[in-house]
Amino acid sequence: MMHNKYSVILSVVGSCCDRYLSTGYSDPFTLPELFDRVASIDHVTGVELVGNWHITTDNVSFIKENMQRTNLKMVAIIPDHFGKMEWGKGAFSSKDHAIRRKAIEHTKEMMDAVVELGGDLVSLWPGQDGYDYLFQGDYIEERNWIEEGVRECCQYRKDVKVALEYKIKEPRTHSYIGTVAQSLLMVQKIDSKNCGVTIDFGHALEGGENVAESVAILKKYGDKLFHVHMNDNYRSWDDDMIAGSVHTLEFIEFLYWLKRTGYQGWLSMDQYPYREDGKEAASESIKWLQAFTSIVDRMKDSEINQLFEKGNANEINRYMRERMFGK
Amino acid sequence: MMHNKYSVILSVVGSCCDRYLSTGYSDPFTLPELFDRVASIDHVTGVELVGNWHITTDNVSFIKENMQRTNLKMVAIIPDHFGKMEWGKGAFSSKDHAIRRKAIEHTKEMMDAVVELGGDLVSLWPGQDGYDYLFQGDYIEERNWIEEGVRECCQYRKDVKVALEYKIKEPRTHSYIGTVAQSLLMVQKIDSKNCGVTIDFGHALEGGENVAESVAILKKYGDKLFHVHMNDNYRSWDDDMIAGSVHTLEFIEFLYWLKRTGYQGWLSMDQYPYREDGKEAASESIKWLQAFTSIVDRMKDSEINQLFEKGNANEINRYMRERMFGK
Amino acid sequence: MMHNKYSVILSVVGSCCDRYLSTGYSDPFTLPELFDRVASIDHVTGVELVGNWHITTDNVSFIKENMQRTNLKMVAIIPDHFGKMEWGKGAFSSKDHAIRRKAIEHTKEMMDAVVELGGDLVSLWPGQDGYDYLFQGDYIEERNWIEEGVRECCQYRKDVKVALEYKIKEPRTHSYIGTVAQSLLMVQKIDSKNCGVTIDFGHALEGGENVAESVAILKKYGDKLFHVHMNDNYRSWDDDMIAGSVHTLEFIEFLYWLKRTGYQGWLSMDQYPYREDGKEAASESIKWLQAFTSIVDRMKDSEINQLFEKGNANEINRYMRERMFGK
Amino acid sequence: MMHNKYSVILSVVGSCCDRYLSTGYSDPFTLPELFDRVASIDHVTGVELVGNWHITTDNVSFIKENMQRTNLKMVAIIPDHFGKMEWGKGAFSSKDHAIRRKAIEHTKEMMDAVVELGGDLVSLWPGQDGYDYLFQGDYIEERNWIEEGVRECCQYRKDVKVALEYKIKEPRTHSYIGTVAQSLLMVQKIDSKNCGVTIDFGHALEGGENVAESVAILKKYGDKLFHVHMNDNYRSWDDDMIAGSVHTLEFIEFLYWLKRTGYQGWLSMDQYPYREDGKEAASESIKWLQAFTSIVDRMKDSEINQLFEKGNANEINRYMRERMFGK
Repeated sequence: MMHNKYSVILSVVGSCCDRYLSTGYSDPFTLPELFDRVASIDHVTGVELVGNWHITTDNVSFIKENMQRTNLKMVAIIPDHFGKMEWGKGAFSSKDHAIRRKAIEHTKEMMDAVVELGGDLVSLWPGQDGYDYLFQGDYIEERNWIEEGVRECCQYRKDVKVALEYKIKEPRTHSYIGTVAQSLLMVQKIDSKNCGVTIDFGHALEGGENVAESVAILKKYGDKLFHVHMNDNYRSWDDDMIAGSVHTLEFIEFLYWLKRTGYQGWLSMDQYPYREDGKEAASESIKWLQAFTSIVDRMKDSEINQLFEKGNANEINRYMRERMFGK
Repeated sequence: MMHNKYSVILSVVGSCCDRYLSTGYSDPFTLPELFDRVASIDHVTGVELVGNWHITTDNVSFIKENMQRTNLKMVAIIPDHFGKMEWGKGAFSSKDHAIRRKAIEHTKEMMDAVVELGGDLVSLWPGQDGYDYLFQGDYIEERNWIEEGVRECCQYRKDVKVALEYKIKEPRTHSYIGTVAQSLLMVQKIDSKNCGVTIDFGHALEGGENVAESVAILKKYGDKLFHVHMNDNYRSWDDDMIAGSVHTLEFIEFLYWLKRTGYQGWLSMDQYPYREDGKEAASESIKWLQAFTSIVDRMKDSEINQLFEKGNANEINRYMRERMFGK
Repeated sequence: MMHNKYSVILSVVGSCCDRYLSTGYSDPFTLPELFDRVASIDHVTGVELVGNWHITTDNVSFIKENMQRTNLKMVAIIPDHFGKMEWGKGAFSSKDHAIRRKAIEHTKEMMDAVVELGGDLVSLWPGQDGYDYLFQGDYIEERNWIEEGVRECCQYRKDVKVALEYKIKEPRTHSYIGTVAQSLLMVQKIDSKNCGVTIDFGHALEGGENVAESVAILKKYGDKLFHVHMNDNYRSWDDDMIAGSVHTLEFIEFLYWLKRTGYQGWLSMDQYPYREDGKEAASESIKWLQAFTSIVDRMKDSEINQLFEKGNANEINRYMRERMFGK
Repeated sequence: MMHNKYSVILSVVGSCCDRYLSTGYSDPFTLPELFDRVASIDHVTGVELVGNWHITTDNVSFIKENMQRTNLKMVAIIPDHFGKMEWGKGAFSSKDHAIRRKAIEHTKEMMDAVVELGGDLVSLWPGQDGYDYLFQGDYIEERNWIEEGVRECCQYRKDVKVALEYKIKEPRTHSYIGTVAQSLLMVQKIDSKNCGVTIDFGHALEGGENVAESVAILKKYGDKLFHVHMNDNYRSWDDDMIAGSVHTLEFIEFLYWLKRTGYQGWLSMDQYPYREDGKEAASESIKWLQAFTSIVDRMKDSEINQLFEKGNANEINRYMRERMFGK
């Protein structure tokens, strides 16, 4: 039996905006309301925060109060490397040395904050670190800067895990930390035990990955899967939809490989429910994941190993269909 | 209750080749063996043939014998506009007038043959009609040629339906009959009651369509869905895999819209099981389709209409999940 | 010689935001500043406005003053069907009848405004009209609503052209007016002489179209190309980059087909220069377009017709390369 | 000044087939004719061969004669791991141990052959090593097998470079050696000085890579670019078209980064000119590459470094346009 731990990123239950409707698709909530909304979702025991959007060095105790009131565990902080004008052209790989320093300092502050709040993980998503136009960046040096910056953060506190969250594009047309394998090359270069990778299910899909295989690759090259973000999309963009609302077999295979590789971390909902109530949208994700998990629970490793040994597509389809819908 | 009629294209149960292994991934079967293999698949009552590959003006009576022996109904013939060297640069839109004439003549012959064999439908897939390079074709005139040629075929025998099977690319990098809406523009121009469209599920996916919506569009603009080919793929290429092996919700929505729009035709398996036994691969497709159909049977139009009226994504996800996996 | 008329959408020279940085990548400009910035770009003689963002029924005379001061011609207004919370779930196809009425009324107001300002075109981009999740909408009825609404607008004033700007996705994961051929099906159904289509170069690319071919298709099925928006992207998303910064041959072929089909309208810059100065970014687009136009000017129709007649890819490549870079 | 060395894969100048027209789009040539055709192309000084298609252990001296007659240098052999029925379900990662052994033995034979013919490189493209269906393979173990097999080959002869040619899909829907970063993870694990990577320009595009960046990544993580295949496509499939026939800026940036990173190897044409004369199609590729190279020759490293330092998109566009088309 898989025993999943579910958490929700605080912004999921808030109001979402996009470039056409920058003032938001619905009215905003206060921070305490967001905590209450997360806590009210069945099966959710943890919460994940975004730097600046939710947490700064100034409001840690206020956050702590909210966590205590709602009895939510600190899953992770995502430091802000994307949501202020100063990050607009990059954070860890900014061409401006002072900005690169700020990216590191903010990360360290969030590492301190996460420990203060009972957690041990920051998930770095340097979304502005990349480029839009050909000939816009030195692909070697700018990657070196990211590796140096992240290494400094990793060495700052060995008791905090630093996970790189890869994404192929957006907000830049090209991200430097784009795929699972690129992330691993960086992690190997950074060479710090507390450095690993966050899989965002939708980012992996958008990058053309089979997400279950990405789990396997992280296992094979150093056991580096540190954290997981859940959502869904149509494969060409990070639509951040309800997990399970588009894909089915991909989620089943993904959960199976989480189990097979012994993943012990959280499944954290990371969605943009522009036109839906976010509380329910997170709840729907969890219910899909539970449905898929119960299918995985009907699969024995010995059976799967036999499927792998033969690789017979017809047998695989029969096996999967019967686990999903019975004979 | 939906009552699907299942058929199989003869080549599905044979040997497949590709550009790297042109001699085939397995040993070939004789024509009678192919018929026997199709007939042995549970729930299959019809067969579809490809011009030149299986049927020519010379072997119609031999085909008839095989159909009688195996008790299979004639579902459709796909005239050959793609598999001989003379079609290499186009059939209906060939720059060579003599080739264009041949494309029309072969189509008429196959229309005669299909009637002779008890059928009433040809499915045209002019796969070589398109272009590879920019500036290679006159996009207007070459489309005119297709419309004129197909119109002539339609007028040749009003008792035979002529369905255009669209596909966005392959073997050309760009096809002239690429999408459902492009097909409809042509059908309207051809302006013959017996002219309609074949949806190949995988072609529609590859072209970025939501296939259920393509069914709706064909209903809306003239009730023009004449035939359906079933298979599956990963959305970027016509992988011709087992139907249901990749997508789930898309098939359920597709089948629902077939029911909603009153489709009365066949579901014909059109796969390339390169590395699998084709007989079993077709059988697996049908079993997935049956599983999906039984889910559709649990949906009432009144419930779906209510979902449509509100458009609430959270309700929709709950409804779908419960129909698929129970509460 | 092609004589292009260049215009710029007012927002191009302002500050851009996205879902991560909703307060903008740079500081905002006032409306008069935006007009001055557009007017200062070489070769620009027209301006295009967005409803609510720039123009409402209340500020028409203020806009008029700015146009007179800057000597810019009124190219088009894009009514707002996407940028207010009330449009969040659709405008012309909203499930709420009152919203559908508002979409029509706002369009009519903008049609009056455009005439008041000396123009004769509105470009409709109903970006919220579509769906995100499967089973979320009635694909037939909601399309009917769009056609009815647009038809009412077209009949309101025959002296104003109403152009549908198609886009495959964003802000919805699926748009109802998604492709050039879907637009034409709607235009034919709406059946009003003043109803046509806007090609946004990047939207067409994102939708998998060869944009030159889209021009040809609009010519063939009713001569319906009414307006053009220029930008560029990497084919998978509407990146709204400098036109010419990614694609080369595609722009040349596009401009050639504009010439071949006798397009007389504007080339209007429609970009999101998040991290660049928008004035210069629009200027760069125009300079690329001029470079491409001078290449088109070196091509004779008789030569192109000969290339079409033979379709020889090697000859085509030689011809194009020599026109671009000499022998 | 860049001094490119051009070669051609022998099959480029022959007859091509696909899954619909398996007997070929044109009549075949004899092996000596293929050599003559390659040798007759301007600027070509080397030839690349495919195992079994052109070279076996039995015809090495015959190949040698042809090379001497035509005065072509041995650039590389691509061992056959894709073109015989026995490789249909994988070579280095076949589930059958005996097939895995054969894949290794054939590679060693081709390593011997390439030395015998004066070369020092084999380019491995294990196109059948991957999977089609979810749950079809053990993503960890099967990758281990590839690494073990290739390591054994590398250790067999240190005087022969072994380059992994990655490709995201085809003939499998998913390849194990799919991207540049995945290749590097494998190369690092194989840990042999003579193990590196082949970039096929079109494979990289198809995999969503910016090819210039892939060159940079190979430089950064071990200086591992060993070989280059040239062709072009529309980004979604390995169309194997004339290099330069679709992309422009991407080739320029790619060639610039080859220069910047000091690449000394060959540019080998790898195309499938289904409907064109292959000799001319290879020649057209080379002429495009020469045109792009002359543009690169107009760029100074100091200027490019300045563009990198500022990252100003408007300046970059101006700079590129002027190098391409003058002021």
